[in-house]
Amino acid sequence: MLTDIEISKQATLEPITAIGQKLRLKEDELVAFGPAKAKIKLSALNRLADSPKGKLIIVTAVTPTPFGEGKTVTTIGLTQSLQAIGKRVAACIRQPSMGPVFGVKGGAAGGGYAQVVPMEELNLHLTGDIHAVTAAHNLAAAALDSRLHHETRLGAKTFFDKTGLQALNIDPQQILWNRVMDHNDRALRQVTVGLGNNNGHAHESSFDITAASELMAILALSRSLADLRQRMGRIVLALDTSGQPVTTEMLGVAGAMTAVMAEAVQPTLMQTLSGAPALVHAGPFANIAHGNSSILADEIALRCADYVVTEAGFGSDMGFEKFCNIKVRESGDAPAAAVLVTTLKALKANSGLESELDISAPDTARLHTGYANLEWHINNVSQYGVPVVVAINRFPTDTDEELQWLKDKVKQSKAFGCEISEAFAKGADGGKALAQTVVAAAETESAFKFLYDTELPLEDKLNQLAQAGYGAAGVELSDKARAQLASLQALNLDKLPLCMAKTPMSISHDPKLKGVPGGFTIPVTELKLNAGAGFITVLMGAVMTMPGLGLKPAYLNIDVDADGNITGLF
Amino acid sequence: MLTDIEISKQATLEPITAIGQKLRLKEDELVAFGPAKAKIKLSALNRLADSPKGKLIIVTAVTPTPFGEGKTVTTIGLTQSLQAIGKRVAACIRQPSMGPVFGVKGGAAGGGYAQVVPMEELNLHLTGDIHAVTAAHNLAAAALDSRLHHETRLGAKTFFDKTGLQALNIDPQQILWNRVMDHNDRALRQVTVGLGNNNGHAHESSFDITAASELMAILALSRSLADLRQRMGRIVLALDTSGQPVTTEMLGVAGAMTAVMAEAVQPTLMQTLSGAPALVHAGPFANIAHGNSSILADEIALRCADYVVTEAGFGSDMGFEKFCNIKVRESGDAPAAAVLVTTLKALKANSGLESELDISAPDTARLHTGYANLEWHINNVSQYGVPVVVAINRFPTDTDEELQWLKDKVKQSKAFGCEISEAFAKGADGGKALAQTVVAAAETESAFKFLYDTELPLEDKLNQLAQAGYGAAGVELSDKARAQLASLQALNLDKLPLCMAKTPMSISHDPKLKGVPGGFTIPVTELKLNAGAGFITVLMGAVMTMPGLGLKPAYLNIDVDADGNITGLF
Repeated sequence: MLTDIEISKQATLEPITAIGQKLRLKEDELVAFGPAKAKIKLSALNRLADSPKGKLIIVTAVTPTPFGEGKTVTTIGLTQSLQAIGKRVAACIRQPSMGPVFGVKGGAAGGGYAQVVPMEELNLHLTGDIHAVTAAHNLAAAALDSRLHHETRLGAKTFFDKTGLQALNIDPQQILWNRVMDHNDRALRQVTVGLGNNNGHAHESSFDITAASELMAILALSRSLADLRQRMGRIVLALDTSGQPVTTEMLGVAGAMTAVMAEAVQPTLMQTLSGAPALVHAGPFANIAHGNSSILADEIALRCADYVVTEAGFGSDMGFEKFCNIKVRESGDAPAAAVLVTTLKALKANSGLESELDISAPDTARLHTGYANLEWHINNVSQYGVPVVVAINRFPTDTDEELQWLKDKVKQSKAFGCEISEAFAKGADGGKALAQTVVAAAETESAFKFLYDTELPLEDKLNQLAQAGYGAAGVELSDKARAQLASLQALNLDKLPLCMAKTPMSISHDPKLKGVPGGFTIPVTELKLNAGAGFITVLMGAVMTMPGLGLKPAYLNIDVDADGNITGLF
Repeated sequence: MLTDIEISKQATLEPITAIGQKLRLKEDELVAFGPAKAKIKLSALNRLADSPKGKLIIVTAVTPTPFGEGKTVTTIGLTQSLQAIGKRVAACIRQPSMGPVFGVKGGAAGGGYAQVVPMEELNLHLTGDIHAVTAAHNLAAAALDSRLHHETRLGAKTFFDKTGLQALNIDPQQILWNRVMDHNDRALRQVTVGLGNNNGHAHESSFDITAASELMAILALSRSLADLRQRMGRIVLALDTSGQPVTTEMLGVAGAMTAVMAEAVQPTLMQTLSGAPALVHAGPFANIAHGNSSILADEIALRCADYVVTEAGFGSDMGFEKFCNIKVRESGDAPAAAVLVTTLKALKANSGLESELDISAPDTARLHTGYANLEWHINNVSQYGVPVVVAINRFPTDTDEELQWLKDKVKQSKAFGCEISEAFAKGADGGKALAQTVVAAAETESAFKFLYDTELPLEDKLNQLAQAGYGAAGVELSDKARAQLASLQALNLDKLPLCMAKTPMSISHDPKLKGVPGGFTIPVTELKLNAGAGFITVLMGAVMTMPGLGLKPAYLNIDVDADGNITGLF
């Protein structure tokens, strides 16, 4: 079989305006970025305000493994298959970060015959939104450090005399804003900035990967440019010497940050290999951020299509939990059905059992034990009141016996149905049964519910979510987290949803606990206010908000050939 | 009069394909980025390889002052006026950096009725080239620090066993590559990275503004994508423990860096207010980098137009010197004429005389004394064998008497001619006389020459350039610079042109020395190899390669209104 980028290169693309027409978008509502990408103007949303909304399908997965479960493949494959059975459909996915593209994966456009194309444009700059987030985030950091520097060097009175601006009296010990970079760069995890003479206040700081920026979450959660502008001003950058928040609005930088993101607020329209519309917008990771593409893309797609397939990052404990408890709370768009992706390999790996056998080989013991993980995720999704269809992403080495065993097993569960997906190898034809079952599931009466009430006291809310959403006995706060909790309560900023940050490789906070861990206590190391995004990030265990490059990073394979084609992305 | 952004907003733009047609570019050679911007494919250059070349006009200026001389206004104005008198013309300018946009100036698109439009698109992301440079530069930094980390923690043998890659044995004391950010962020001038556990080798480092990145110079100096790819591989990131260069190619990251810049290598086509074509490409600053837009944009424009107007940053000692000694050496395109921009205000400010009078008021003493600066620049440009036309950028407060005095004075100089430009207030009509004189100057026989031979021993070359190009008595190397000189000679990497980095506010290295300083000795603090760009950067005096934000930065004025329009750029 051809590589992903070869398949992408060989595809005959439709003009992006033709893709827009499939969604009944007008030509002047699209801003072309080359022949295969276009920004969608938000004016489309105003025009469509009274159009009926389609059904939202959310794709999630079992606990991920290093083998890859093919969640994006299934998302794009399902979209293609829904189109193939005659539905008006769109996919809504996240923009890939350069971190994983050059680090681990080499790409995040789906794969095989279920891809968004051109995959190299999706995987690199797309239409520049992540760059805009990086630039706007770091502008706030430069502005904050500079203001502290000038106020400190001049004193509040002279500063006012020279500028007409009231001093903010930023507490140098309470700088809450760091910088971001869209790379896997471990050397930036912990840094000291402001060293040397006249370079400002020297202090320890850090860079997160841009996917973890609060601005990325704001981009993903805003409902309009005006909403984005307001959220931009609510960001708390630091505390002042009286312990009160210093916001982006107080610093006078929120308008400029919004200007930097004024184009990024428009979702980007692309197409799948079968010419189905795909909206790409925002890229928060699901382990260290809230893990879902934008509300604005969903809103446009739901007004234009009968089915909208979107994807939540990692397992259902991670991206899907935050999809429900954070994104749906903002959007009001409850999903009509969920698709839970698994593979035989993933279940074997999730069994936690040692084995002599290759993970691709038939292995009754590991498969049967590993099934518990799938069942946990079925139950987890079900508790939100969402009908769940299990999609088995088939690999060439899978045996019919094991696939049948799994299908039979799922029949006994709470799942609405279970289908095999062969989208990777067969494109739109490989997922028609899955598409039919998803359509049926979406017709069922469902009653979506959140897992917790945001008005609860913060520690109660934390315990409730840890128990109901992650199977924990409860949480234990570090001294630092406890102090942050007290500060959030004192400032009356604690009535927000929670954005759990943890390893994706286990339902628990400990990547070594496979299958269905239970009875564990989650160590909460930090609580980070995201007042603009509207949530509190909860760091569970040793969470890195900046990945590192491995021993043999994907960048080693990537190059540009003599004809200007990018090679080595996969 | 309206503000710049108001004028830009009110302009009726031509479709960018129509602008391309003025240059006889084919529609399929343009990649649209919205209605008003397009990337130009490099295939156009292949098609046009045998077309005759137009004449290249380079715009430079007297020693700059805080009042602004209007060099970009004159560049765009001259382009508009050349078009108005019936010439086929294009402007080639640099992409503005977000640093000055949010720091000092609020924009760099020209001004008044001599602007490139839409100015807010030019001033913010354009088509993402600067973001691509930032991303590619920082990818190399992450890759280098990560490789050092993995080799150190495993040892060379285990590293090889696990990866199949030969150890590079990077000397942790000889890391030559830093990181970049496209902001004015003083806190990043001096940093420590790699702190904490398992985050790599902790070391002091710095961020430059992206405009000073070697990759920005490579983008500006490459003649093709293949040339860019080769230069990408020649970059020296560090020395190994034997003192030998560790390059991007050896690290295996040059291909991925090129992939990141594969779109950026295409110049962006825009238009002036009068619908004249403007190619925007690369953005090196002229104080801390080589200060000129790209060779690729010039090459395309010269094949498509009879006159190409480009601009070299700051005074003729800075951008113009490097235009001649670095850019022309690579491109082979000697300029047919130079335009030297001055204002009455600039000459008064360059007089160095204290005065009770406002700088806009008539002031014979300051004007007559300050004239010496203009004369120095006329002589400086003339010594390269380029005919020079002085353009007096008129301000409303200028008196006819002073303007006439200046014109008469220039008549006695080596200048080919002198004209008043009113492009700011009058657009294309304001510079027709200047355009006619420039056309006449470009018809004269001229014999372009470089100021030094790159094959000279490095210290001799330095002294020759300091004397001939900057009026210095000579240079004095710091111990650090002397050690670097020895290293460059030992590695046989010293036969390159020089990229002088210094304050733009004086012909000398000392911003306080106004007018025509002479007899000074330039302290050379550092010599930085740019093996990919193909020059050695010479840091003269206290040079900051990362600007800072001032007391009242421009970002304070910038916002987005309810209709999504960006406000406050000027």
